[in-house]
Amino acid sequence: MSRPNLQVALDHSDLPSAIKDVVAVGEIVDIVEVGTILCLQAGAEAVRCIRALYPDKKVVADTKCADAGGTVAKNCRESGADWMTVICCATIPTMKAAAKEVEEIQVELYGDWTYEQAQKWLDAGISQAIYHQSRDALLAGETWGDKDLTKVRKLIEMGFRVSVTGGLDIETLKLFKDLDVYTFITGRGITASENPKKAAQDFQAEIKRIWG
Amino acid sequence: MSRPNLQVALDHSDLPSAIKDVVAVGEIVDIVEVGTILCLQAGAEAVRCIRALYPDKKVVADTKCADAGGTVAKNCRESGADWMTVICCATIPTMKAAAKEVEEIQVELYGDWTYEQAQKWLDAGISQAIYHQSRDALLAGETWGDKDLTKVRKLIEMGFRVSVTGGLDIETLKLFKDLDVYTFITGRGITASENPKKAAQDFQAEIKRIWG
Repeated sequence: MSRPNLQVALDHSDLPSAIKDVVAVGEIVDIVEVGTILCLQAGAEAVRCIRALYPDKKVVADTKCADAGGTVAKNCRESGADWMTVICCATIPTMKAAAKEVEEIQVELYGDWTYEQAQKWLDAGISQAIYHQSRDALLAGETWGDKDLTKVRKLIEMGFRVSVTGGLDIETLKLFKDLDVYTFITGRGITASENPKKAAQDFQAEIKRIWG
Repeated sequence: MSRPNLQVALDHSDLPSAIKDVVAVGEIVDIVEVGTILCLQAGAEAVRCIRALYPDKKVVADTKCADAGGTVAKNCRESGADWMTVICCATIPTMKAAAKEVEEIQVELYGDWTYEQAQKWLDAGISQAIYHQSRDALLAGETWGDKDLTKVRKLIEMGFRVSVTGGLDIETLKLFKDLDVYTFITGRGITASENPKKAAQDFQAEIKRIWG
């Protein structure tokens, strides 16, 4: 198994606090995500700032694009994003249109998606998926369990590079030890911790400990 | 049947051109939508500008929210939006969290949603839905047909106020003449026409002709 990436998600409601938080950890993580909340609040300026700060990191715009894939993706690329996300209930034409404009797109899995749909994404050339515990589901008391791990494993077996996200902390990582996870994504698990730099380092150390 | 509303969607990639276009038609339409593309490009500033221009119109932020419903909706409300959209594959907790923060939320129907899911939205107190022809589906050659009208009718019968959108023009409206459509949404059908003000007036005149 290869070592999973660590991705920090900037889910701030304003750009200044996102910038303040990212500069403490951006060099430690592998991928920097401009989260949906930040995209909607600060617009393309947020992506441009992150690109300027980290010219050599992968930058993801978490647009969760559902339509107008070509336009949204072109805009993301022009702002400096390498990757962008599309929502799983977007149509295949939307996903294909987006995929033409950016280096890669990632399918965000929410709600009642099916493996049949997932196969269609693969057939369309889309091989990154993001498996979530939704924030609102977590707030409603749900957590990572066998049900989730089984789905992640199946997606990996189908051929996806799978990122996992939602309520991850250092303790949670070992749940995934037998899985070839592509990327662990955490937002406040790093940015809201008492010492964000140490939190990012601890995540990376635990990833190295488990996956080598 | 009551007379449907007319909603203009601002799907511009930059705020100045959106503002230029909306001032020609904003007083004619019933609802002004800050489209997803514009939200992602210009952020909350776009919603604030539209609210400032039209203090007495309904303003919709078309966030197509998939997660973090409470935060996204609170941000939308603070920027001046009355309504916001959520994507159909969002979880019920996400929809409920959003619904607490804004006057109303609207479910955007993309992909393989089911009537069983739709009933859950109604049970959660969400009674607005938006039926789409996705822009990318339209670009791929699809158009409005009986299949769409049947779904719209069924949603209305279930108790939804249904907005329809995607490739609408003056000629298309009469397809819906037997349906109690809540709102017709058009973007470039108005803003990209040669005379946007006349286009908006023509839409309203045709709506009045059909629905009285």
